Parts: sequence; C-alpha cells; structure tokens
Amino acid sequence: MTLRLRRYLRFSAVWFVFVACCLLAAAQSRVEDVTVHSAGLEHNLLGDPADQPVSIYLPAAYAGEPQKKFPVLYFLHGYSDTTPRHVAAEAAQKVMDALITKGAAQPMILVFPNGLNKYKGAFYANSASTGNWADYVVKDVVGYVDSHYRTMAVPQHRAIVGHSMGGYGALTLAFEHPDVFGSVYAMSPCCTDLVADGGPSNGAWVDAAKLQSPEEVPAALAKGQFFAAAFSAMCAALAPDASAKTFGDLPFVMEKDALKTNHEVYARITSKMPANMVISHLTKIAQLRGIFIEYGAQENFSHIVAGAQELSARLSQAGVPHVLEVFEGDHGNHFNERFSEHMLPWVSRQIAQ
Amino acid sequence: MTLRLRRYLRFSAVWFVFVACCLLAAAQSRVEDVTVHSAGLEHNLLGDPADQPVSIYLPAAYAGEPQKKFPVLYFLHGYSDTTPRHVAAEAAQKVMDALITKGAAQPMILVFPNGLNKYKGAFYANSASTGNWADYVVKDVVGYVDSHYRTMAVPQHRAIVGHSMGGYGALTLAFEHPDVFGSVYAMSPCCTDLVADGGPSNGAWVDAAKLQSPEEVPAALAKGQFFAAAFSAMCAALAPDASAKTFGDLPFVMEKDALKTNHEVYARITSKMPANMVISHLTKIAQLRGIFIEYGAQENFSHIVAGAQELSARLSQAGVPHVLEVFEGDHGNHFNERFSEHMLPWVSRQIAQ
Amino acid sequence: MTLRLRRYLRFSAVWFVFVACCLLAAAQSRVEDVTVHSAGLEHNLLGDPADQPVSIYLPAAYAGEPQKKFPVLYFLHGYSDTTPRHVAAEAAQKVMDALITKGAAQPMILVFPNGLNKYKGAFYANSASTGNWADYVVKDVVGYVDSHYRTMAVPQHRAIVGHSMGGYGALTLAFEHPDVFGSVYAMSPCCTDLVADGGPSNGAWVDAAKLQSPEEVPAALAKGQFFAAAFSAMCAALAPDASAKTFGDLPFVMEKDALKTNHEVYARITSKMPANMVISHLTKIAQLRGIFIEYGAQENFSHIVAGAQELSARLSQAGVPHVLEVFEGDHGNHFNERFSEHMLPWVSRQIAQ
Amino acid sequence: MTLRLRRYLRFSAVWFVFVACCLLAAAQSRVEDVTVHSAGLEHNLLGDPADQPVSIYLPAAYAGEPQKKFPVLYFLHGYSDTTPRHVAAEAAQKVMDALITKGAAQPMILVFPNGLNKYKGAFYANSASTGNWADYVVKDVVGYVDSHYRTMAVPQHRAIVGHSMGGYGALTLAFEHPDVFGSVYAMSPCCTDLVADGGPSNGAWVDAAKLQSPEEVPAALAKGQFFAAAFSAMCAALAPDASAKTFGDLPFVMEKDALKTNHEVYARITSKMPANMVISHLTKIAQLRGIFIEYGAQENFSHIVAGAQELSARLSQAGVPHVLEVFEGDHGNHFNERFSEHMLPWVSRQIAQ
Repeated sequence: MTLRLRRYLRFSAVWFVFVACCLLAAAQSRVEDVTVHSAGLEHNLLGDPADQPVSIYLPAAYAGEPQKKFPVLYFLHGYSDTTPRHVAAEAAQKVMDALITKGAAQPMILVFPNGLNKYKGAFYANSASTGNWADYVVKDVVGYVDSHYRTMAVPQHRAIVGHSMGGYGALTLAFEHPDVFGSVYAMSPCCTDLVADGGPSNGAWVDAAKLQSPEEVPAALAKGQFFAAAFSAMCAALAPDASAKTFGDLPFVMEKDALKTNHEVYARITSKMPANMVISHLTKIAQLRGIFIEYGAQENFSHIVAGAQELSARLSQAGVPHVLEVFEGDHGNHFNERFSEHMLPWVSRQIAQ
Repeated sequence: MTLRLRRYLRFSAVWFVFVACCLLAAAQSRVEDVTVHSAGLEHNLLGDPADQPVSIYLPAAYAGEPQKKFPVLYFLHGYSDTTPRHVAAEAAQKVMDALITKGAAQPMILVFPNGLNKYKGAFYANSASTGNWADYVVKDVVGYVDSHYRTMAVPQHRAIVGHSMGGYGALTLAFEHPDVFGSVYAMSPCCTDLVADGGPSNGAWVDAAKLQSPEEVPAALAKGQFFAAAFSAMCAALAPDASAKTFGDLPFVMEKDALKTNHEVYARITSKMPANMVISHLTKIAQLRGIFIEYGAQENFSHIVAGAQELSARLSQAGVPHVLEVFEGDHGNHFNERFSEHMLPWVSRQIAQ
Repeated sequence: MTLRLRRYLRFSAVWFVFVACCLLAAAQSRVEDVTVHSAGLEHNLLGDPADQPVSIYLPAAYAGEPQKKFPVLYFLHGYSDTTPRHVAAEAAQKVMDALITKGAAQPMILVFPNGLNKYKGAFYANSASTGNWADYVVKDVVGYVDSHYRTMAVPQHRAIVGHSMGGYGALTLAFEHPDVFGSVYAMSPCCTDLVADGGPSNGAWVDAAKLQSPEEVPAALAKGQFFAAAFSAMCAALAPDASAKTFGDLPFVMEKDALKTNHEVYARITSKMPANMVISHLTKIAQLRGIFIEYGAQENFSHIVAGAQELSARLSQAGVPHVLEVFEGDHGNHFNERFSEHMLPWVSRQIAQ
Repeated sequence: MTLRLRRYLRFSAVWFVFVACCLLAAAQSRVEDVTVHSAGLEHNLLGDPADQPVSIYLPAAYAGEPQKKFPVLYFLHGYSDTTPRHVAAEAAQKVMDALITKGAAQPMILVFPNGLNKYKGAFYANSASTGNWADYVVKDVVGYVDSHYRTMAVPQHRAIVGHSMGGYGALTLAFEHPDVFGSVYAMSPCCTDLVADGGPSNGAWVDAAKLQSPEEVPAALAKGQFFAAAFSAMCAALAPDASAKTFGDLPFVMEKDALKTNHEVYARITSKMPANMVISHLTKIAQLRGIFIEYGAQENFSHIVAGAQELSARLSQAGVPHVLEVFEGDHGNHFNERFSEHMLPWVSRQIAQ
C-alpha cells in the first residue's frame, strides 16, 4: 500500500465518520400517526369503527441508518385511558430519545395501538360482541408495521407491553402468540384472575347487572361507576352474548336477592385469564424469551395483587422463568418512572440486537 | 328376690320415669338478661359504660335437672350488629329447643356478650383506647357465668363462636386462651389478615383518615361509609393511640396524594390477626380441641376469603387440625341455617359430655 | 270402629313389628365378589386382564327389605395397595354394620372396584397405554351394580370415595361425571397438582427416567423405589405414549445433567389433575351436591398438602361449596378412624334417602 | 489566561491522566485471607473455633485510588459447602475484575465469611448450642472489615448476599440489621419457611431423631443423609437445647410409630424463618433499600419454591417492594451465571456511589 493510498483511506475514513455524525445529528426521532383497518372489527355490535388510529415512534437512528431494521415494542394502554395515542407516543418519544442518548436503551420502534371502544375498553380480546381486537393487534397492526417500516420481523425482536387492561392484553396476546411476540412486560396487569375485588364480593356486579343497554355502559363510567362499566366491558369482551343487554354475560348474578356464581360464565371468562391459561397454553408460554410482571405495593385493585401472585406461582410450578416485581407505589402514581427506568431498559435488553 | 320386691322395684322405676317426664315437661328453657361489670372497660376513651348487658339461654334441662352442670357456648356478634342481645338470645332459644328435642344438640348454655361500643364494634380486643373488651369476655363474662350458673367450668366444655367481627373475636380469644375455651367456630370471620379489601386497595382508608373526631365514626357508618367506620373502629381497638383523632393509628396513610403503608402500624395491627398469630401463639393454639372456620362461596368481603385460606394453610403447615368449610351463600344470607344446622350441632359434639 | 276391629289392628301391628324384627334379626349383611368385564381394558399395553374383581357389601337391610332400593358408595383404593378387594370389603362390613346398628349411617351398598394394574396403580384414568380404567369404574362397574342389585340409580344416591391414588380417582371421576356421582369424598388425595414432592425437586424423576421396560416398574417398587414406580405408573396413565419405554412420557427429563421441564408433557398431565380441572370442568363440578377433601396434619406427601390447599382455593374462587379438613395424623395412620367415623357418616348423610 | 498557562494546564491534565492510567494499569485486584476472632463463638457446644477464616476481594481501584472508600458486599455460602473461602474469593475475583472492566459493576469489596461448623452449617444464627454466628458476621466480620479497610461504612453501601443456607442467612441478617445492611440478594434461599420438603412429609426427620451424638451429624452427611444432617444442623442453630443429643430440638418427632408436630419447637424454629419474620420484623424490613429473591424453575428443594412464594406474598401484603425472579435452572447448575450476570450487577447498582 502506497503512502498515497494510505492517506486517501485515512482521509476517506475521517470523511465517512464526519458525514455519519452529521447525518445522525441531523436525524430526529419522530412520531407518526396512521390508521389501520381491521376486518375483524367490522360489524361489531357496539358500532365501533374498523379503522383504528395507531401512533408509531421511530428513533432517530431509523432515519439516520436507512439500511437498518429495528426491533419493535407494542404498548397497550389501560381501561378508560382517554389519552390520544399521539399524545402517549409523544411522551414516550421524549423518554426514549433520552434513554438512547445515555445508552440505557437501544433504538427501537414503539407502536401504540388503540384499545378504546364504546365501552372504553376492548380488553384486546376477540369477541363476537365487540369485535376481534386481538386480531387487530396481532395481525393487522403488527402486519401494518412490518409492511410499512423496517422492522426485525421475528418474535425475538418484538415485545408486547401494557398497563392495567393493557397488561392483561399483553399477557394474553403473548401467551397465545409466542410466534409473534417473544417477550412480555405486564405493568399492574388487571384480570389475571377473577379474585378479590374481581370476585363476587364486589357489589359492582349488582350494578353491572342493572345496566339496560350499551349506551348505559359509558354513562355508568361517566357517573363514576368505574367497576360496573369495566365489568360490563370485560364481559362483552370475554363472555360475548348478543342477546344480553350489554352484549356480555355476567359471572355473578342476583338470584332471590343474593349474588350467585353462574359457573358456566365464570369458567368462560376465567379460562381467558392469564393465571388460568398457564396449563392450557403452556407449550406456547414456554416459548417466550422473557416474562416480567410488576405491580405496586399499594395497588388500588386487590385482584391485581392476588392474580399476579397466583400467576407467578403457577408459572413457577410449570417451570417457566419470569420476574415478579413489587415496586413502591400504587396502580398509577409511578407509571412514568416504571415505564422509562424499568420497562424500556428491560425490553431493550430483551429485543435489541 | 321376692315377687313383691320385684313388683315394688318395677313400680318404683315406672314412677321415677313418670316423675322425671313430668318435671321435664314442666321445665322450660329460658333467656335471662344480666349486666356484667368489667373493670377493664372503665375509663375507656370512648366513654362506653363498664356495665354491659349479657343475655343467657338456659336449656329446659337446666331447670329440670337441678344437680347437673352444663357446657357453655359463648357467641360474639358482628360489627354494627344492633340486634339487642336479648333478641338474639330469644332467636337462639327457639333453635336450640328444637335441636335438643330432636336430638341434634345436647343441652348447653348459650351466652351472648356485647361487643358494641360507640364505634359499633370493639373487636373483642384489649385496647388502651376502647377498653379491655377481651378481658370483659374472657374474665368477666366467663367469670360471671361460672359463678352464677351451674357450668362445666373447664375448657373442654366451653366453646367460643362468632360471626364476622365476632368470628375474629372468637379466633383471637381462643388462640389466646385455650385454658378458657376448648373449641372455636368462626363464621365468616373478618380480619384474619389485612389483605384484599382490607389492604391499601380499599379507598375507604382515605375516608377513615378524614374523620376528625370520635363522633364522626358512628356518623360515617350512618352515612353508609361502612368501611371507613369499621376501619376506624378496628384501628382504635388494635392500634390504640390516645393522640390520634379517632384514637387509633391507620396502617395506610396519604403521603403526597398517594396511600403509603405505615409499616409500624401495619405490623401492630396484623400481628393481632389470626393468620399471623399461628406461629406466635402456636403452643396455645395446639391445645384447642377443635377449630372450625367457614365462609360463603359468595362472600361480600374479599379479605375474609383470602384470610381464611391463609389461616388454613398456616394451621396445616403447623400441624394443627381444623376444618375449613365453604358454603353456598354470602356473608349473611345463610346465617340462620349455618347457625342452627351446622354450628350448634358441631359445638354440641365438641363440648357436651 | 268396633272393639273387635281395634283389637285386630292392634294385634296386626304387633305382629307386623314382630315379624319385621325377626326378619331383620335373621337378615345379615354380606360381601359378594364378582367379576366385571370392561371392553375398554382389552388390549392395554401392559397386558392387564379386561376382567376385574369387584367386591360388594350389602347391608342387612338389603336382604331384609326385598322391595327396597339402596344408595351406593364406590370406594377406590390407593397406589400399590395389595389388599385383596374382598378383604377390604369385609373390613368395611364390620364397620358399616356397627354404624347402621347405632344409627350413625343409613344402610347403603359399598362397592370396591380394582385399581391395581401391572404398575400397581392405574390412577382410574382412561389411557391409550394402560387401558380405560375410568370407563371401567364409571360405566362398567356402575352399570354392573345397577343392573345386578337394587340400587337408587341416580347421582344424588351415589358417592365416590377414595384414598390417596383413589382420592385422585374419586375427584377426577366426580368432576367428569356429576351425572353419575353426586358426592365425592377424597381422603388424602394424591396428584391434585404436580407440586412439592410431585415437582422437579423430587429426584425420583431421574430414577423413573432410567427404567427401561414395563417389567422394571413393579421391580422398582419392590426395590423400595416408591416414587419412581408411582411416577411411571402415573405417566403411563396420564401421558400415555406407546413408544416410551414404560409407555408414558415424563414431565421432567434430564438434559445435559440437569432436570428440565417438558412443558408439553407437564401440561398434558397437570390438565388432568383436580386443581387444574376447576375451571375447565366447572359447569360439571358445580353440579356436585357435596365435595369433601381431607388430609393429615403430618401428611407424608407434601404435594397432597399443597395440592389440596390449591384445590380448595380455586373451588372457593369459583363459588363451589366444599369442606377441607386437616386431621391429626399422617397419610395412613388414622385411615380406619377417618373411614368409619367421618367418611361413612358424611356419605350416608349425602346419599341416603 | 495566557497562552503559556493554557498550555501548562493542558499539559498537566494530560500528565495527570497519563499517571492515573499507569497507576490503574499497575494496580491489580487482590484477595486477602484474614482471621477474625468472634467472642460469641467461644465455648460453643460443638467445639468450633472462635477464630474464623475470612477472605476478602479488593478491586484494582482499591490500590489505585488510595483515598477512596468502597462499598462492601458480604457473601454467605451454603450448607456443606466445603470450598475454602480463599478459593471462592478467587473465583469471584475473576468475575468481578471482568465486570468492572466492561462497566457492568462498580468497584466494590467482596467479603466471604465462614459459615461451616462441625455440622457443616451454622445457619448464620445466634445459638446457645453452636455459638453466635449472626454476631460473628454482623458485628465481628463487618467490624473487622470496616476497621481494616477503606469502606463506605453505612448501610446504603453494604449488601448481604447468600446462596441456599447463605440465602437464609442473608435474609435473616438483613431483616434483623437494616442498620448494617441496606440491600439483600437471596439466591435460592433455604428455610424461608418449614413447608414442603422441610415439613413432616420429609422422612429425614425420623433419621435426624436417630442421631445419638454430635459426631453422628457430619457422619450422616458423609453417608449421604443430606437432609438428616442439615435438619440436625438447623435445629442446633435455631432450636438450641444443650440437653438434646445433637444439641437441637426437632419440630417433628416420633410418637407411637408416627411423626407428630412438637408445636413449641416448630414455633421456635419457624419464627426465625424469613416468611414468618415479615410481620414481627416489619419496621426493620421496611428500612431495606432493596430485596431480591431468586430460585430456579427446577429447584431441587421444594420448600425453597413454596417458601419464596410465601415470603413474596407477605412482603407484598405488607407493602414492601422487592423482586422475585424464577430463572431457568436448578439449585446450583446456574450459580455462576446468576452470581456474575445478575447478582453482582444488581448489588453494584444498589450499593455503589
């Protein structure tokens, strides 16, 4: 190698680094809003649209490294969360940009599907009443993202995450589809089992039974009857019944002035809850590369505590590695910190290259 | 033996049976109302009287067999139970008379102490705030009954029974005093541990924290704030603090708009709850001759379910025989049936001669 | 009514009572041994016969009241129980006769099917390897008894009971067939879930994996390798695999010198265990009229304790009434007392007229 | 600032970095072996010495930065671990050096006390029989290290870690002494409660009862009677009794050919087990800055699984943040990986500056 060539190469290398730095400096992360059509949502009994908004965070490196493919995190929001997808994605943008800058997370795409229906929560489940919201996420949103963006379109580079009702969605979709999502992080997941304040001791079951039409479900929520509305939404999602007044069957019903368990409905609903899916879905669950479950030491929903402990015990018995973390805080007051300082770094370690 | 003698004896026997039958026919069961003074209740901070009403059921055989001593069942009522002791005792009278007649229970004395204080529930606990209600039952009422009635004054012939708050009282007094009570039957016992709707998920802890004076506790109950009142009553009983506004410390308190666990108070309260007494009181508990715990399949209080399961598991681990029964029903709607068809026959088998 | 008629009727009544007493005095209980053919046991891989011995206890009243139909209790024995059926039935005869005499149990028929196969335990399950032992009990033995004896051939007058492996059989057959058995009493039931000494911590899984042929299973038992033999028998029954060396797949297997969970097999086996059947079989389970589960405070098998507690908790959550009793004793040392003083009287109250 | 001065400063800075790098390059990590005298170990009944070997790892930075103080991790080994302290410390040296180099752990001091006594395990407990091994660790070893090395001698910069019996030690010493240790990491901790294979189902209790002298305890271990030896060692540590043959009382004893629970001893032992210390030590436990509990999905000791789940549930109820992780592996086959890739980085984040 001649001196001239060596100089040229050195110059070229310097030049290349210089240009790359400029490009990266120029490249910005961004949030895009798209609409995804889901055939399985057509003709649902609540009249919710089959076109659903989805917001997508793209890290700076996405523009900066135009040949590169990226891992993807899907985030499912909670019941009655009226924050627009775009707003949530922009909040996540700030956090992710900072984490990437300081090296605490690798660049990855974040996708924010919608889970809000007329009842203020579709539970990300396929339902003859409310539509196939599981398919919407697993097939349509994932399909859209993989076909419109440079993604690493394999399970080990996809994670599903969610909070509260979204934690339920994350666990059930991961347990059903380890061929799509390789890792799951459930933040204060609701509905892991129908115990404690999800059981017959909760008088809201009586209120839910009094709702006479679909319109009364969001009205109940607006009036402060959180549980009555959430129970109605959950039953329409997990125990759909077109002939029921709010399109879902209730697991506990009044008989002669006392609440009784309707065992058929109870089984139909609880068989779709994560703690009770451990045995029935074990071969699938065992394919997951990572399971993280967390809730607050002062959780506002007692079934979240009891259900998470049950789920952990059954996963343990069945030989499924996982992490259970109890953090200081309640259902929501440490969400930002858990999201940015714990969930994102863990997911990054799981799904990044 | 001459024929005359044989005839005489036969006649005598007939005569004896005849007389006995007449006496028994003549003898009636009855309910007596007495007042028992309890020095340990004097000077309590709520101003409740140290003289407390107690009603006592005496079976027909008590009058009919004036030389005989009888086993005794002590029954502790629930929180905010405003049925006068006398009324409860008369209801039990009908049931017991019928059971004795058909042979389903042996004659025994039933004693109905009072557990209602200004807060509508003293939790049958010794408290620097509310007075020594445990001593009132264990020492003063038992002492009164043994000194005024023909009782079999030994533990194997005494049982303690209670419903809800009374179930808590029955378990704790039996666990503390197997030298007094040989058997315990807890009907839907509250407060076996501070879990589920007894834990921080229950928003009523926030309401309880807002009560500014002792007067506001019964007022809260009257306004329908059951849990806020019951929590206040429980804390005054189990975590007495003369400087606290309602004379009890709360295990969960608001800090910067969020509920936090006060670990010192939590430990003070829960160490007095049956599930957490199993190890600390084991040598005493193991002396009991019978432990029966029951609750409804549709319990209205989720901590009763979780706490009873915990208590059963810990008793089992510690090698303490016991029965756990889950019956069809809720917290109260099968009370009469459980009382008469299950509790009384079981207690009768335990404590009768 | 004339004096003559009155005298005649009185005489008749006296005569009737006299004759009845004579007949009853003359009538004796007895034990009969029969052979029941079960088509589902033909061609099993272990070469066990399709004709199986069954012993049947008939109370004295059966002969004494020739028009009467009787309730039936089916009793399933435990693993490696080599007591001949006839001997067990004769022991039960003494106990039942005495209980009937003193009024502690009503006359009922007791049936003792066989559960011993070449592996010393068929787990009363339908298996492509070991044959359809569930069908043998539920269809063939019940069918035989109902067609050859005067039985009250409806679920409310049939109970199924068993000890250890028989307790497993009793629970699973009742959970599957509430249309056959109305009540179930499980005495120290094994295998309610694969936890504690049923889980991977039990080194006997390694021993079981070393067995090379069906002949080595009973040989292992004879050598004192109880768990290795019992695990092999259980896996042949619950995870049949004609290509496996002992005809069953193991849920925990050695990989690179360490035990690993085979999740597919684990799920196949545990989905047939009572604690995990609560949700999947709930509509059936809820039809049962009575469920009684008991074990000793010093049980010799730790999975029996943990599994029974799990089963009780899940039944409770699902709104299914039941009794859980922990008695003083271990896996077997109080069997006779539990059988005669607790199980038989409870079953009698459940299924007698 | 003149050009000269700027040049000088630049030169100085370069020089300083150069010298520092040289020093660091020159500085090596090292392991030191010391002997710590513990007055509380004098006169123990087993004749174990009061002078105990301790090995100490000092990171390269310790020599390289002679003004700096360092955080300290105390590591407690398991039962019958015959690896000399020095060998363990040297293995840790390789791991720590590599972690520090790649930035996965901050420089910290690692201390390896001894927990081996004549019974091959002292359970790090104060015992009238075996000596005060808790004091040895908490007072004497910590005191020695703080007085002989440059340590950050406050709880937030000290962690206690242990494996198996050492995990028990770590949890109990942290629960008792949050004023000494701010963080605890328990790796497959034994003895968190006396359940599953720690309970009466374990026949080794019968073997333990047969040991006639202290000499027979290590002899039993040598013969392969692991549990009999470990139970004897545990009882001498937790239920010391100078008059017992092996200086400890057993919680389960033979009576008339059957194992019975000695409730007094059971309570004495289990009250010193972490799951049962949650309420009694809550105010202390709540002072801890971090609690991490882990075990393998194929644990070899079933009480470790059940006990860890219990401990997690009770900490959760009591509002104590913590992490429970179930990893792929058994009691020991992933120890190195868990030690280096999980425990050390977590502890580093907890206690480093």
